[in-house]
Order: sequence, then C-alpha cells, then structure tokens
Amino acid sequence: MADAVRLDILARSRVSRARLGRLVTPHGDVRTPAFMPVGTRGSVKGILPDLLERSGADICLANTYHLLLRPGPEIVRDLGGLHGFMNWPRPILTDSGGYQAYSMADLNRVDDDAVTFKSIIDGSMITLRPEDSIAVQNALGADIIMAFDDCPPPLAAEAPPAAGPESGADPVDPRLARVLKRDARGRKQFDLRERLRVANERTVRWLERCKAAHARAADQALFGIVQGGTDPEARAWSASRITAIDLPGYAIGGVAVGESPEDIAAVVRHTAPLLPDHKPRYLMGVGYERDILAAVLAGVDMFDCVLPTRNARNANAFTPTGQIRLRNAKFASDLEPIEPGCDCPACIGWPSTTGAPSRPFTRGYLRHLFLAEEMLGPILVTLHNLRYFQRFMGAIREAITKDDWAGLVGRFPVAAPALVGSGVP
Amino acid sequence: MADAVRLDILARSRVSRARLGRLVTPHGDVRTPAFMPVGTRGSVKGILPDLLERSGADICLANTYHLLLRPGPEIVRDLGGLHGFMNWPRPILTDSGGYQAYSMADLNRVDDDAVTFKSIIDGSMITLRPEDSIAVQNALGADIIMAFDDCPPPLAAEAPPAAGPESGADPVDPRLARVLKRDARGRKQFDLRERLRVANERTVRWLERCKAAHARAADQALFGIVQGGTDPEARAWSASRITAIDLPGYAIGGVAVGESPEDIAAVVRHTAPLLPDHKPRYLMGVGYERDILAAVLAGVDMFDCVLPTRNARNANAFTPTGQIRLRNAKFASDLEPIEPGCDCPACIGWPSTTGAPSRPFTRGYLRHLFLAEEMLGPILVTLHNLRYFQRFMGAIREAITKDDWAGLVGRFPVAAPALVGSGVP
Repeated sequence: MADAVRLDILARSRVSRARLGRLVTPHGDVRTPAFMPVGTRGSVKGILPDLLERSGADICLANTYHLLLRPGPEIVRDLGGLHGFMNWPRPILTDSGGYQAYSMADLNRVDDDAVTFKSIIDGSMITLRPEDSIAVQNALGADIIMAFDDCPPPLAAEAPPAAGPESGADPVDPRLARVLKRDARGRKQFDLRERLRVANERTVRWLERCKAAHARAADQALFGIVQGGTDPEARAWSASRITAIDLPGYAIGGVAVGESPEDIAAVVRHTAPLLPDHKPRYLMGVGYERDILAAVLAGVDMFDCVLPTRNARNANAFTPTGQIRLRNAKFASDLEPIEPGCDCPACIGWPSTTGAPSRPFTRGYLRHLFLAEEMLGPILVTLHNLRYFQRFMGAIREAITKDDWAGLVGRFPVAAPALVGSGVP
Repeated sequence: MADAVRLDILARSRVSRARLGRLVTPHGDVRTPAFMPVGTRGSVKGILPDLLERSGADICLANTYHLLLRPGPEIVRDLGGLHGFMNWPRPILTDSGGYQAYSMADLNRVDDDAVTFKSIIDGSMITLRPEDSIAVQNALGADIIMAFDDCPPPLAAEAPPAAGPESGADPVDPRLARVLKRDARGRKQFDLRERLRVANERTVRWLERCKAAHARAADQALFGIVQGGTDPEARAWSASRITAIDLPGYAIGGVAVGESPEDIAAVVRHTAPLLPDHKPRYLMGVGYERDILAAVLAGVDMFDCVLPTRNARNANAFTPTGQIRLRNAKFASDLEPIEPGCDCPACIGWPSTTGAPSRPFTRGYLRHLFLAEEMLGPILVTLHNLRYFQRFMGAIREAITKDDWAGLVGRFPVAAPALVGSGVP
C-alpha cells in the first residue's frame, strides 16, 4: 500500500542539508519547508479559513487532546471530519494528545499501557492508550497523524520538588520508584536521565502499537516521533529504533521545551540527519525564526508553533528585526503599519468598493484596539504574524534554490544567529 | 451654506409614509431606509471593515462617549479622523455621548450647563457640556453628528429608589427638588413626567448651543433629537421646537428604552410625520425587525442597533422566523448553515483556491466554537446577523417600490406584527 503522503524533493542546498520540497497529501500539496499554524480546537483563533489560506498556509494543525474532550471525535466525524468541521479543505495534521495529557492536566499517571489524566472540561478521569489516540485521530481524519509517545519532563527542567513517594503523594509513574535515587544526604531524587530512558523505550513500544491500531493508513499518514531530550546518545538510540518502524514520515519531539537556541540547534543538527532522507521530517513545536532556520539547514521540512497566533493575542507583532509590542505608549499616534512593506491585510488594508485607496491599519489604531480589548486587535495582529511566518518560509524556500543565506538573513536579521555553527558561508 | 448631507427621495409608498431614498454624504451615498451597525469603540466587534462593507452596510456608527474616554479625540484626529482610524472610508455617524454619560456612569449629575460623570476607564470626573460634545465630534470627524441632549430615565421605568435628598445622597439633578413631590403618605416622590418636561426644554436650549458650537457644518451634518418619551403632547412640543432649528436631519430619541413594541410603534407613528419630509429621519437605537418595519411605514429612514452584533456574541442568530440559540444541544451534529438560503460568509462558506466547493459553516461547528469560547464563533454569527439585517433592509427597500408589504412579511414573518395598525393592507 502506498503511503498516504509523499515528499517530492525539488531542490537541495549545496552548502547545507536544506531541501526544497512538495509534500503530496490527500488534500493537496504543501510547499516545504512549511510552517503550520495551530488551530487547537479546530479554529486558528479569530481567523476565517479563507484568510488563513490567503496568508499562504498550505496546512494547519489541530490538537487531538482538545478535540477529544470537546466536542468529541464522534461529533467531528459526523460534521464531516476535521476538514468539513473546520471548513478547511487543505491538509491538516493532528498531534496525538500525549503532550497535552501530560502538560495540561493537574493530575496524570502514566504506565506501560496508557496515560490517565483528569479532563480540564469536566474533571472526569480519561485513560488514553496509544490505540485510543489513533482511533481518535482516525475519526478526526487529518492527513497526517502523530504517534502517541511518552513525553517526560525535559532534562533541562528543574527536578520536581519532593512530591515523590516520600511526601505521601502518588508517584507520577508507578515505575518511577525505579528511577528515584538517593542523593548524598540519603534523600530520594528524581533521575530525569533514567526517566528519559524509560520514555524512550516506551515510545518505541507504543509506536508499534500505534501502527498496528492505525485503520486508515491509505489516507492518513502516521508519523513516528524521535525523543531523547538533549542527550545525543538517547537521540541516536531513539532515531535508530523509531526509523526501524516503516512509516511515511518522522518527527523530532521533545525540543523547544525550555532549552537555549544553541541546544535546540545542536539536538536538531544531530538528529535530523538520522531520519530517512526521502521522507518528511517534522520538528514539533518550533518556533522562533532562528530555530526554524537552523532546523531547515539541518534538513527539516515541517514546523508548527503557537508563537505567531499566541503572541498576536498579546499584541506582539513579528517583524524581521524582532517583535514589537503594540501596547507600547510610543505607538499611540503612530500612522505606520505594523511592518512597512508587509503584504498582510493589516499592513496593506483593503480595497473598498468606494474606490478609496487601500490604507494600512495603523499601529496607533491597533494599540487602541488592544487597550479597549477589541477582538479586532488580536485578529489583525494574528493575520500579520501568520503572513509574516509564511513570508519567512517563502524566503527560506527561495534561499534554498539560490543558496543565498546571507541574503535571507539580510531580509530577516532576527534569524541571523541560525547561521552561527551551521557551516553555511 | 449647503448642508453636509442631503436626502434624495427616490420613491414613495402609496399606502404608507415609507420612502426609498439616497442619503448623500461627504463619504458616499447611503441607501435608505438604512441600518447602521454599531462600532462602539471604533470597531464593529470582530469584523474586518471589508467584511462589514461586504455585508451591505453603507454607513456605521461609533460612540463619542467611549472614544472620548479612550483613546481621546486628539488621538483619533491624529490618526486620520474616524474614517482613517477605523479604516472605513464610507459614511460614519457618531452619537453625542449624552446617553452613555447618563446610563453607563455609576455617578452622574446634570444641570442646565452640563452632564458630569465618572469615567469608566479611570474614575476621573468628566464634565460634558453641549459645546464639548460637539468639539469632540468635530475632532472625530463623522459625516453625521448628533445633538447633545438631556436623556431622562424613561417614563415607563421604575421611579428611582429613595436615593434623593432624603437619603443624604446628592440629588441626581439640583433642579430635581422642583420635581420631587409628596405622595399620600408625605414621602417625596420623583415626578418623571415633570422630569421629562425639564429634559425636553433643556434639550431645545442645548440644541441651540450645539448648533452654535458646530465648527464643521460644511462637512459634518448635525442632527437634532426629538424627545418626549411616550407622551404624545411632549413629543409634539419637542418636534415643533427642535425642527424650528434648521438642521440637515432630525432624530427620534428616547425610544426603545423598555417600552412594548406597540408603544414604540405608537410614538414613532405620532412623531415621524412631525419631522420635515425632505430631510432624513433617524430612529435611534431601534431595533427588532418589527420595530424597524413599523418605523419605515411611518416614514423613518435610518436605524442603528447593537442587536445583530451583541446577540451574535451570545450565540443568537437572526433568521426570518426568529432568533436561534446556537448553544442549544440540538445543534451539536447539525450540518445545516445558520439560515439555509442566506448569502453571508457563515452560511455560504468560502471558495478555496484548491477548487474545493464552498461549504457552509455548520450549526454543529458554530455550537462547538461557542462552547470552546473560540473567537471565530462570535465572528461568524456577527457576519451572519449583519448580513441578515442588510438583507432585511434590502427587502424593505424593494417592498417600498412595489408596495408589496405582504410579500415582505412573507419573507420575514418575524416582522409581520408591524403591519397591525399600520394602515397597510
């Protein structure tokens, strides 16, 4: 059986691992390297889908965890699957729900079989096994679905306070007893490295179960996820075991959970080349322009991040020289658009049928909208940020064909740090 | 000097006072009878101005009270006046701020000179004289500006609790001592009829001051406002005194503040014919379809109301047979659009460049968006309601030329009660 998606590589950089491609999916093609806006609950917040399409997005992402809790996979399926539900006829990717089950629930438990967590909607306890995640994603019907993996806390994070067995609280994981060690003063300590090893092994076993449970391989591509934190050996082990399972694409997970840009770049430079060259590579949850560019240079094809949408709702607008905070008093009477030269609806305005010239929405007006808590503020800045990210990806795709990386960071100075250590001249 | 706006009457009903017209303004023409969506703080909540234009709105309204408090008239003027500020090149109308100064402030005081109220933004005390309201509206720069009137509580309302001089609190109006009478048990009582008389007289004096203060009569049309509550004599007195002051248009104020539809219709049928035939007549703050139709039949040309936008944000969608509540569980898996046959962006969807057919946003998806508190729910239902009101006005304008009122209420059954007592066959 042919894979549900296929990556055609159209051009390769001669000075880096970057590649220009076309990801062919059941709902159309995606230009790669691609940035996928996030529509958590089946909507990119405040954005009509035609405006999302006009931003240049070829594909968007929705979150299984949120849609599982509300409205539930049966409702989404009855309303036409995610494409019909969202009224978005282009490609869609869903995550597995695992990450949110860990990070959003006050209470969760993981063992070799499943993650159990408390619903943020009604407080009920929900058990999600790899098979359940795939069944939900099969019902949602995205073009690309993600493996359900064990997502431990990042190695870089603080060790949890002594809320382990000593305090009387339930352990996060019954198997954690194995990874609690005594420190020099005899106190139990949470061994994150050991926890990572457990997660890595479990993620491989769960991927097998995901693949076996997947009922729509003909029209939904299941991607495996490489874990391993910032440990090169753990990453290599994971890549070797995950890619040994034949799938249409692979992702790098567990990145951008608090590391420095240098650590992100190091993990991605180490891991991306370990994934099959002829299949799409997806770096989950990344991110800033410099992180995206560093990953593209390492051979990554797909990205998603809430930055453009979430930051927009906080009045932070992306520009090639860095974000601007539109609540700042200095913008009160500013007649300029967010970013002069940008072609988004906020920066160029709209052509009225009156024949009045198209004029930008001014920074002064945008500031007013945010101070007055008017929805139109988040909407306009989201439109800008979405278009900004697509312009950035377009410039990256152009740079690949020309290998003009200096030209790219000339246009997007904020991404310049990505060239440091990349090997690109 | 020519008036800033002019009403060309293009056709007249033979069986009612309804007239079809074109209101010519410095920023273009308005088809009348017209419905004006409300953009309180310089934005119709959640709606990009090009979508507002595409809804069929020729003119919109903004509120002087809110813009005075934030961002302030100087900022709006510096950002290009309201048209530039909002990025709306078509006609705009501003109210005077008087109504909000009375109704929104916890604390206010009125005397012959001014209204003094507490800012809802920073708690500061603000004094607004008729001259101040006009100066602010001159700075905002709308095509039509409204007289600053004394807006007493409606006669229909409950008399205020004993927060008069007896309770030690300051009286609402130093002159109220004159209108406090003793009831049978010797308690002071608030005589609303007397208060209305005071307001009516004051409103005439203030209109003279507004006209004298108006500095942009060449490009901003000042409309006078007839008050008088539900008392026919007070309305007649007010209409006679207000229309004796030569202005480009007149409004009926103090309606739709709690009366029954029958009372609204009675006041409007009584008052509208007392306004000059060849000038625009504006019924402020109305309203429901039946109220609009009753007023059109009485010769009213202009309407504004927050109903389509405010109700949309509460998931209430207008249809010709009444509003539907999209949060209702019965819509959970409903594949229908809000109103089959409607041509709004929510009901017809959008044509993707993928060539995928345009599909409606389903009631099921809209319900999900509201339950998930996604902005896109209010946005889509606002787009529908705005278009619904413009479709209704378009049908009214069509009915005028044909005098086919039975046909109109056949298409919009919800408006049928307006024909009762209208004299229309």
